[in-house]
Amino acid sequence: MSQPKSPIRTAAVFHTQWFDLLAKTMDEGDEPYYSLRLPDYAAIVALTADGRVLCVRQYRPAVERWTLELPSGLVDPGETPAEAALRELLEETGYQAADVEVLTPMLPDTGRLGNRIWSCVATGLSRVEGREPEDGIEVVALTVPELLRATADGEFDHALHVAVILLAQLRGKFPAMAI
Amino acid sequence: MSQPKSPIRTAAVFHTQWFDLLAKTMDEGDEPYYSLRLPDYAAIVALTADGRVLCVRQYRPAVERWTLELPSGLVDPGETPAEAALRELLEETGYQAADVEVLTPMLPDTGRLGNRIWSCVATGLSRVEGREPEDGIEVVALTVPELLRATADGEFDHALHVAVILLAQLRGKFPAMAI
Repeated sequence: MSQPKSPIRTAAVFHTQWFDLLAKTMDEGDEPYYSLRLPDYAAIVALTADGRVLCVRQYRPAVERWTLELPSGLVDPGETPAEAALRELLEETGYQAADVEVLTPMLPDTGRLGNRIWSCVATGLSRVEGREPEDGIEVVALTVPELLRATADGEFDHALHVAVILLAQLRGKFPAMAI
Repeated sequence: MSQPKSPIRTAAVFHTQWFDLLAKTMDEGDEPYYSLRLPDYAAIVALTADGRVLCVRQYRPAVERWTLELPSGLVDPGETPAEAALRELLEETGYQAADVEVLTPMLPDTGRLGNRIWSCVATGLSRVEGREPEDGIEVVALTVPELLRATADGEFDHALHVAVILLAQLRGKFPAMAI
């Protein structure tokens, strides 16, 4: 088996305000390997006292349609993953959480993306007076069976957030029930 | 709530052999929204007769380290997701499968990627004489509890493939056991 090795050269070939496109040369003379350098993601499973999960429905330009997802976003410079997750929860839903737990990070896409995704589980939720969900976002509170059924049926289909649910289940932070 | 709308203009601003970087203008005068246009992915849960899952360990330039994943890859032009999954299984592990089932597609990253990921579940596995795993790939056959424990611990950490496991569980194609 070949030994793994680091790139011999990495160049940022295109810059946007959200990510840089990197060209990594693994061997002299080979076509570079292209991937994105971007901040980590944080996604949050926010569990209400009556056993619902706060989800958001929004229009996504990358896929050009509405999606049903967990609240999530990029971790800003200087933020911890927990802070980013709580900020996104507040911005996208108008809820705050008394407690948040951060699970082991995962890799969003080992083929194309250089960042990590942090799974956060929040409890002790309350609505913040005067805070409305972000313009363009509809908040949907699903029961756990509803969320798992929406996953099985392909309605809750953001794969990174499906992964967050299984990780939370395996760490005992989310009910694993038959649907 | 704002009405969703399609981009008023989409331009390919950088081309690679694997993807195009798109700049989508949603409103005149606004900064474009950047995402990647690329073929669909296919990932395969290959279950052996003795209850193991074929995984692959390989070096990944995007994250610059070794990972433990399911066999997977891009769906080539003219291929179905099932054909792509079986081709990747053969190339990466040297195994063929008698049966393969394709589940509902998911979205790998609704923020940055325009493609879909197809989850495939294969049974009736057999080694193909003379076919070795691709250079640089180590095949690891994990029991289901081992795979779920590796997920909980963050060793099996490709989030898209963690999502494939939960979807397969929810569709009754993969054991959902406590670990």
